[in-house]
Amino acid sequence: MAEASSREVTRIMVGVNESSIKGYPNPSISSKGAFEWTIQKIVRHNVNAFDLLFLHVQVPDEDGFDDMDSIYASPEDFKNLNQRNRISGTHLLEYFVNRCHEIGVRCQAWTKLGDPKEVICHEVKRLQPDFLVVGSRGLGPFQKVFVGTVSEFCVKHCECPVITIKRKANETPQDPVDD
Amino acid sequence: MAEASSREVTRIMVGVNESSIKGYPNPSISSKGAFEWTIQKIVRHNVNAFDLLFLHVQVPDEDGFDDMDSIYASPEDFKNLNQRNRISGTHLLEYFVNRCHEIGVRCQAWTKLGDPKEVICHEVKRLQPDFLVVGSRGLGPFQKVFVGTVSEFCVKHCECPVITIKRKANETPQDPVDD
Repeated sequence: MAEASSREVTRIMVGVNESSIKGYPNPSISSKGAFEWTIQKIVRHNVNAFDLLFLHVQVPDEDGFDDMDSIYASPEDFKNLNQRNRISGTHLLEYFVNRCHEIGVRCQAWTKLGDPKEVICHEVKRLQPDFLVVGSRGLGPFQKVFVGTVSEFCVKHCECPVITIKRKANETPQDPVDD
Repeated sequence: MAEASSREVTRIMVGVNESSIKGYPNPSISSKGAFEWTIQKIVRHNVNAFDLLFLHVQVPDEDGFDDMDSIYASPEDFKNLNQRNRISGTHLLEYFVNRCHEIGVRCQAWTKLGDPKEVICHEVKRLQPDFLVVGSRGLGPFQKVFVGTVSEFCVKHCECPVITIKRKANETPQDPVDD
């Protein structure tokens, strides 16, 4: 068992989104928290044993996004983005790819268009990570009625183990629906 | 961040129970699976970075259990158990402590009496592990009506991140409620 594990890395998918307060390219408080938790508690210094797969799902809108097929794996991959993509989802991924580069852990990052909860489960099915990490605002039942929660859907429906990292109480913005 | 993580270990609580088919001292298929997954995918060879905390909650019954306050951390701790405890929950813990000893990862294991889902959440509150791993039989909604699921309760109510490891399809016994 222990011997088998040395042959291949553990692939962790991390669902990330933009801040509802600061917009692109800033990550939401809960995605940043989920990522940092994964590094601090799981990867630790064992950077060669893990691959991080960052998925950002962008809800289609008029400021549409035209670079859906690229994969980003190092800070250099972001150098030639045009202005349109810089203000959109791709630039969000740069934050996480840069952090991985600093830490020395391998990663891939990409964006998909669609309904986040559906697309995350679809990408899990396609890529079969060992587990999925998602952040959560930790909303109460009343607040959830209005905003839905991607994390609860993923826990129920994704075809891999899912770990939900709740936002720290001291990082909750004035309006807890913000992130 | 990365530097901070080197100062302390990641504490993983693992909820374990006995096999409904083979009884004590055999672990259930899903607890064994959850443990092996944790070693293979999270701990890997980084054995000094993790502490495993095994909690077995025994539902009180007539074959009651009289050694509730001991903590077991090495194979030697099980040598002087009396016959009554050998056939009960304590002996189940020996399986996991022995495996940790073989692998070289630090662990503690203990048994509590009560309702598993309530006690697990209570112990999480008391010990504040970094996260909790629980196995699950992966039952469908119809089957769950009759048996309840500890893992779903823990995901909702425990005060730490929870990762549920579903039993592999090829390990499902003839009656999927068995484990």
